[in-house]
Formats: sequence, C-alpha cells, structure tokens
Amino acid sequence: MLTTRRGVIETPVFMPVGTAGTVKGIRFEELESGELDARITLGNAYHLWLRPGIETIKACGGLHKFIGWERAILTDSGGFQVWSLGALRKITEEGTEFRSHIDGALCFLSPEISMEVQAALDAEIAMAFDECAPGKATSEEARRSIELTLRWAKRSKEAFERLLSVRTESGSDRFVVEGNKTAGKASGTPAYPKGMDRQAGGTPALPVRQALFGIIQGAGHLDLRRESLERTVEIGFDGYAIGGLSVGEQKSVMLDVIEDIAPRMPQDKPRYLMGVGTPEDLIEAVARGVDMFDCVLPTRNGRNGQAFTSRGRLNIKNAQYTTDQKPLDEGCACSVCRRHSRAFLRHLYLSGEMLGGILLTHHNLAFFLDTMRRVRQAIRSGQFANFRREYTEQLVR
Amino acid sequence: MLTTRRGVIETPVFMPVGTAGTVKGIRFEELESGELDARITLGNAYHLWLRPGIETIKACGGLHKFIGWERAILTDSGGFQVWSLGALRKITEEGTEFRSHIDGALCFLSPEISMEVQAALDAEIAMAFDECAPGKATSEEARRSIELTLRWAKRSKEAFERLLSVRTESGSDRFVVEGNKTAGKASGTPAYPKGMDRQAGGTPALPVRQALFGIIQGAGHLDLRRESLERTVEIGFDGYAIGGLSVGEQKSVMLDVIEDIAPRMPQDKPRYLMGVGTPEDLIEAVARGVDMFDCVLPTRNGRNGQAFTSRGRLNIKNAQYTTDQKPLDEGCACSVCRRHSRAFLRHLYLSGEMLGGILLTHHNLAFFLDTMRRVRQAIRSGQFANFRREYTEQLVR
Repeated sequence: MLTTRRGVIETPVFMPVGTAGTVKGIRFEELESGELDARITLGNAYHLWLRPGIETIKACGGLHKFIGWERAILTDSGGFQVWSLGALRKITEEGTEFRSHIDGALCFLSPEISMEVQAALDAEIAMAFDECAPGKATSEEARRSIELTLRWAKRSKEAFERLLSVRTESGSDRFVVEGNKTAGKASGTPAYPKGMDRQAGGTPALPVRQALFGIIQGAGHLDLRRESLERTVEIGFDGYAIGGLSVGEQKSVMLDVIEDIAPRMPQDKPRYLMGVGTPEDLIEAVARGVDMFDCVLPTRNGRNGQAFTSRGRLNIKNAQYTTDQKPLDEGCACSVCRRHSRAFLRHLYLSGEMLGGILLTHHNLAFFLDTMRRVRQAIRSGQFANFRREYTEQLVR
Repeated sequence: MLTTRRGVIETPVFMPVGTAGTVKGIRFEELESGELDARITLGNAYHLWLRPGIETIKACGGLHKFIGWERAILTDSGGFQVWSLGALRKITEEGTEFRSHIDGALCFLSPEISMEVQAALDAEIAMAFDECAPGKATSEEARRSIELTLRWAKRSKEAFERLLSVRTESGSDRFVVEGNKTAGKASGTPAYPKGMDRQAGGTPALPVRQALFGIIQGAGHLDLRRESLERTVEIGFDGYAIGGLSVGEQKSVMLDVIEDIAPRMPQDKPRYLMGVGTPEDLIEAVARGVDMFDCVLPTRNGRNGQAFTSRGRLNIKNAQYTTDQKPLDEGCACSVCRRHSRAFLRHLYLSGEMLGGILLTHHNLAFFLDTMRRVRQAIRSGQFANFRREYTEQLVR
C-alpha cells in the first residue's frame, strides 16, 4: 500500500502512462470512474520539459493543477526517453546532449536538471536520472551503464535533497510508503503484513514532500543487477525500480532478472518494474514480488486496434470480426464491452475514426486495471497461486 | 416537437453529425448525458454504404443496433456527399457515377439505391436523393438542378413507398411529426401552437415506419427556391429541408433564402436547414422558423482547435493562452470548462494529443446543444426576441 498526499494506493498497482500530461485517448473522468479507478498515473519529465515547458507548468501551479488531475502522479526522469532517442543523443559524464524530438533543438539533460524539472512538476513520486543499457548489452557495456547510473543516482539524490530543503515542509505533504510483498509468499498469508517497522507506529510519514525512487540497471547480467541494487540501496531511496527491461531482451531474461532481483529489493519499500508489460507479465512479476507497474501497451495497442482480453489478444482489424456482434471480451463488464460489438469497433478502426482508439483504449485500461484488482483480491484471500494458474490457462495460445 | 419511435424530440433541435456511425471524438454515453442530451444524430447513407457496407449493417440488425445507439437518427441520402466529390463524379438523369473516396472504386448512386440503403439503415428519418447547385450557380444552372432534384424526389418517394409496402407495419414504428413554428412570431406566443390539424386528434401517427423528407434546392434564386418548395410539397413528404446552403454563397444570400422560404414551408411539417451553421446562424434561422439543424462545425472545428463560446470563437493554438488558467468559456458549465484550462487545452492541441480534440469537441457540442436548449426555453417563455438580441450583443466582434 502506498499512502500519498493524494490518496491511498493499494498495491500491486498499474499506472496508466500519461507521458505528456494526458493518458492518450481517455478523459480524466473515465480514469477516476469506478470502472477504471486509476489511483496513480505516470507523467514524463522529458516530454513535459520540452513541451509545454516547466515555466508554463509552474505558472499554472504544478502538473496536477495544470492538467486537472487530483490523484497521484509518478514522473519518470527522462533518462530512458533520452536514451531511446538513439543516434540523436550523446551521453557524457555530465549528462545527455540530444536533439529534441519535437523541433530538433539541441538540449541537455542531467541528473540536476531532471530533479529541478521533477521538483517543479511536483508529482508524488520522482525518479532518479538513469542510463539504460540495451537488452543485449555485453557485460562490459552493462558495467559502464550501471556505474554511470550509480554516479547519476548520487547526484540525483543530492540535487533532490537540495531542492527539498528550499521547499516549505507542510503536514499535507506527507508521503507514506509501506511494503506489500506477500504475493510471492505461500498463498494463505495475509496481503498486508503486520508488524513492519513502518507500520508499527501507525504508518509514519517519510520526511519528504515528494518521494524519490532509485533505478536498478545491469541489462540481463544478474551479477551486475545485484551489484546495482546493493549500491543503489546504499545511496538510499524511498523506493526502488527495476529499469532497462522490455528493451529488446528475451522474455526469459526479463523474468530471470525479476525473479533474481525483486526478492532482494528492500521489503519495506515499493518495488517498481518500469515499462512492463502484458497482463501475463504483470501477474508473473507480482508473483516475484513487484508492487508497481507502468506500460504503454493498453493505450498504444488500443490505438493500433489491439484489444487485451481474458482469452488473449484480439486484432480488431481481422476480417473474421466483420459482422461479429460479440463484445471484445465476453468476460468483461466494462462500458465498451457492455455496449459495442467487435463489428462496430472494427468499422471504427478501419474508418480511422477517433472513437475506435478511444473505445479500445478504454477497454484495455479497464482490463489491465481490473486484472490488477483481481490480483489484489486474490492476494488478500490467499488465492493468488490459483488465480495465476487459472488466468494463464484461460489464454488461448 | 418530433415524436419518433425512439423518443420525443423537442424542437428547434441541433443534430450532431455522425457521418460514419460515430459523432467524431465523442462517446455515445456523453451524447446521452444530461450535459449534452443529444436526442437525434445524423448518419450518412453514402459513407455507410461504402463502409462498412449495407450487408454488414443489415447482418448486425440495422444502424442503431450496429453502432449501439438507441436514440433517433436521421440519415442523409448521399446526394450532397456525391455532389461534393466534384470532378470525381458524373451526374446523369439516372443518378450519379463516382469514384469512392476510400479506394477509388467506380460506384453508382441513384434515388432508388439511396432509398434501399436508407431503408436498410432504418433511421427514423430518411432524406430524398437530391442534387445540389453551387452557391453561386446561375439561374440556368440552378433551374437544371431543381428540375433534376424534383424528378429524383418523385423517384425517391416512389422507391421509398415500394420499400415501405414490403415491410411489416407495427404499432411501435409510428412516427409523429408536429410543427413548431412560433419562434418567428411575436414573442409572447406559446411555443407549441394548439389546434393544429395534426394535434387536434391527439398527435396522430403518420402512417409510416420511417419518415421521408424532401429537399428544396435553387441556390440563391428566390423564384427557383419558391418553385422548388411548391413542387416538392406537391409530391408530398413528411418534412421538408432547405438544402444547398452554406456551399460557397454569401451569408446574406443564405439568410435571404431562409427568410423567404422558411415561412412558406408547410406549418405542420418539420423544417430542416441542412448543414448550417454557427450558433448565430442557428438562432437567426430559428427566428425565421427553422426546426432542425445539423452541422459539422462543433466537431470539425473542435478537432482543429477552435472553440465556440458565448463571446465568439476562440483559437486554442494562440500564444495568448499559454498560461491562461481560465476555462474555454467562463459562462459554460460543461465538464470540460469545469475542469480544464485554456493553457492545458492548448498544450494538448500543440502536442497532437487525442484528448485535445476530444475535449474541444465535447465543449463545442455542449455549447451548441445548450444554446438550442436556451432557444427553446426562450421560445417557451416568450422571450426569444430578447434572447436573440442578448446573445448577439455578447459576441465580441
């Protein structure tokens, strides 16, 4: 469970991605509705810094006020986005020089600048500025990457604390983090372990206005991942994230890393798996102890005509759906499945109508968020192992 | 007031345009919400015939069932759409040959085919298949156009009745039309005149499952417009539409035509002004006796970053809104204006985010529909003349 100044967030939690201050194709009212009930969304420091710019967001009273969203937000540091620009960027010790994807302007992002940007955005959770290695990086490349990421993590924390010290402390800004690490344990254990240090005194507040999470790198090399974890924990953050997965490596490598690293992450801090993945990936990662997820799959794939269902993925453009009057997912109770047929959704997609993307995005987010709700229920009732097996069996391979 | 098998529709009414079976950028739930409460939308026979095709819609149980909309629909005949293809079409006595805007395939549409398509779509109101003259057509061109439109109107009606006679008559398919022509009269008159023939017997049902409206053409030539009206009424339809306006003529020409023609249209049948216009145009046309409107302005302009407000139009891309925390329209109570600032909407628009179009579309439709609600209230309370003056004075020129 995460308790932020903007509400309590039960974990494990999926965070819809709202890169530029909007989860693409869906209104905030829908995200808040009981059907989706997204408690936290993700924004991106890189994108918001470039456009509309931090001065604009500051003038509008911070990111929440600017976009009109009162619930929690996590901002990514921009490290991954800059890294993913590939040939358009040059990484130095100081930071990363790159060409803006918007207008080609030469820009420079560093741990210090990212922290300034994220402080101005004032999300509940900020991320350290990291450097990612390719999924198939050699041991040498990955070593260089974790060393740089560790130096940047130290600088991120220092800059973050300097910025914090100039802000006014106020009771309303308390941020509480509690671990929730039972999914990987034997079923039957209660979901929210009693007696943790943090809970003993009645969920004490961390002495921060904004939380800062550190990021573990190391590509597919378990020794480097472990070292990255240990040394990141030594620096000390409010939560820890596994970065650099889902970037071209084999799925088995991804699961191996999660399997090895997640249980070694601090029990009393949230464990966040960045940028992953399918509903099945989420369930497998929860089984290995992960608390937080973000991924563009439900929104991006929705816009591209792909629906996630309890039977697997469905490509709405397939001719077999031309007159199919069934909903996307017969097991889904979302407003799209209650009202619209595959035939109509296919027509919308093929006609290039906005409503196609809007409805598939809604269904996919409903499906991801409902899956996580069911995961939490299964954990609470000690049925996670059964849930996981049944979920997997239901998929049509 | 229009009473259809799918609900009562107070007039004057604005019909959001849902060309391909979707009002672009907005969910049906929003159209149904109390905030918008759109009672009737417009679909297009031309577009739906080409894609997804009538066989698909038939297999899915008609247009309402296909798209998931239980309220009333009016379908346009395709005459205007084919005409607007310009060089891509060839008009003959029999009908119009044209290249599909989707795949360039050679297609042919005629009054008979349009009636078949519209019968299959099974909307509450179908339109005769007409031919439009350019806004600046000479008297000769316009004469040719009305003569062809009249011959096509006869063929439309004959085909429509043949198709009707093969359908099963059922009590649930009654369609009631009542005129509502008081706006143009002195303020103080009740909105819904008593004692009309149609109402004397307690709103008798027209003996039709689907209604068919005739279309008056004649460009800016009043003599031809009057002749078109008289001869269209002679053929006999359930309602009458003024077509061929807003197609390049001066605004004064448009108002002159409405001013001259609307009062001559049958008192006891709905008067529909096709494809017009701005909120001000709507109010002026109501003042001249028009009951029904459709227009793409709120949706199309919304997607292009233009908002309609009580002060006039607002271009959200203007730099002056960069940090403007006011809503689009300070006098508007819609969910977009209650929640989002101009600054955020500008950011969404400039970032090419779907939500920009979604939110501006919602506001614009809310604004148009609310304006018509206020028009109806003003008529009911005998305050239409005041309303019209105040509305116009509020606009910033």
